[in-house]
Amino acid sequence: MEEQKKTTIVLFSGDYDKAMAAYIIANGAAAYDHEVTIFHTFWGLNALRKDENITVKKGIMERVFGKMMPRGADKMGLSKMNFAGLGPKMIKDIMKKHNAIPLPQLIEMALEQDIKLVACTMTMDLLGLKEQELLDNIEYAGVAAYLADAEKGNINLFI
Amino acid sequence: MEEQKKTTIVLFSGDYDKAMAAYIIANGAAAYDHEVTIFHTFWGLNALRKDENITVKKGIMERVFGKMMPRGADKMGLSKMNFAGLGPKMIKDIMKKHNAIPLPQLIEMALEQDIKLVACTMTMDLLGLKEQELLDNIEYAGVAAYLADAEKGNINLFI
Amino acid sequence: MEEQKKTTIVLFSGDYDKAMAAYIIANGAAAYDHEVTIFHTFWGLNALRKDENITVKKGIMERVFGKMMPRGADKMGLSKMNFAGLGPKMIKDIMKKHNAIPLPQLIEMALEQDIKLVACTMTMDLLGLKEQELLDNIEYAGVAAYLADAEKGNINLFI
Repeated sequence: MEEQKKTTIVLFSGDYDKAMAAYIIANGAAAYDHEVTIFHTFWGLNALRKDENITVKKGIMERVFGKMMPRGADKMGLSKMNFAGLGPKMIKDIMKKHNAIPLPQLIEMALEQDIKLVACTMTMDLLGLKEQELLDNIEYAGVAAYLADAEKGNINLFI
Repeated sequence: MEEQKKTTIVLFSGDYDKAMAAYIIANGAAAYDHEVTIFHTFWGLNALRKDENITVKKGIMERVFGKMMPRGADKMGLSKMNFAGLGPKMIKDIMKKHNAIPLPQLIEMALEQDIKLVACTMTMDLLGLKEQELLDNIEYAGVAAYLADAEKGNINLFI
Repeated sequence: MEEQKKTTIVLFSGDYDKAMAAYIIANGAAAYDHEVTIFHTFWGLNALRKDENITVKKGIMERVFGKMMPRGADKMGLSKMNFAGLGPKMIKDIMKKHNAIPLPQLIEMALEQDIKLVACTMTMDLLGLKEQELLDNIEYAGVAAYLADAEKGNINLFI
């Protein structure tokens, strides 16, 4: 009997293109029967935000961060050639033309494939993000849980 | 008999300094008898572009992307202190002074050491890059081929 | 008897938030009995700089780089929402409020946990950084030493 293969990705980046790369690798690995975890930390948490405005009690700093960070995958910028937001529009138009799957659908697909999407509780705390603001069906954990997944993994990436 | 060691790098970044780091690690690993693959995706594809202008049929968006992205390793910018293109010039002058190997030569060296340079076909399609525009002697593949290489690897990096 | 677990991180980035992520993972892994190495290369070397001004003989280019790069972990900027230096101040205020450990203390903690902090000699040379300018109790090595650590590792990350 073959051992269970594992892929564990830390998604630190809040860029649309980097998150896309993470989710494409993750969905691919799941299709090849890997057990896959994406651990969202720092700006990567934005990919897990719901796109509507959720009212929660926050301090002023946390409120400012919350306003300035993109609300959900669809609003994230590009790591290169962002052109004040024009770049993502161009990329999305091209993706549509080539029938590539946009990030929000890649995230849905990940959930359907039972990829474990984890939000890093320590950085949620720092950036003032609350569970109500994030997608349903995700998990919450810290660095210890990440290490437990990663140390048995075949593929470990920091994106 | 010892098992074949493997290093697999995803080069996502289009920055000169990050690509240099990727190619230095890759060439080092090959020198220590690793089987090495660099999988170029998104902006990392620019490292594989030929530096001359190749005429190919493209849509308008793809043409715009093609114009705006650096044509080949030598034209890539820095991830930090780019100073509108002055940074790379400074780094290259310093590299020359210290006899460090510039990126285009690191890429040649990689090919001589039989490092497998792969262009991600999905992002070539998105960014409108054609095989004629990329270096000779490279391979073309998708995420499935990447995973097959990476899952048996000792060192897996996303750069 | 269980095999010694290993975590090896390349810290390429000179961003406060990315370095924080690297050191949080590293300190976590050390707490779970991993043998941990952080290999600082390119801008990541700035995390190892002493914060006082050390007088050393340098060429002009190296002097310019030295002036422009942050002197030590506490002066590093953010990868996102840096706002000309306001972002790091905000993050540090929030970290204080939430009793999170600032980067300079995470680095001290790493040394206390016997995490091997390595400065990449090749990029020290390029950026004109001298041993006197860097923290005490660190090691100096090149890509060969990195590969020797990484190829036996459970967790390999490029940050």
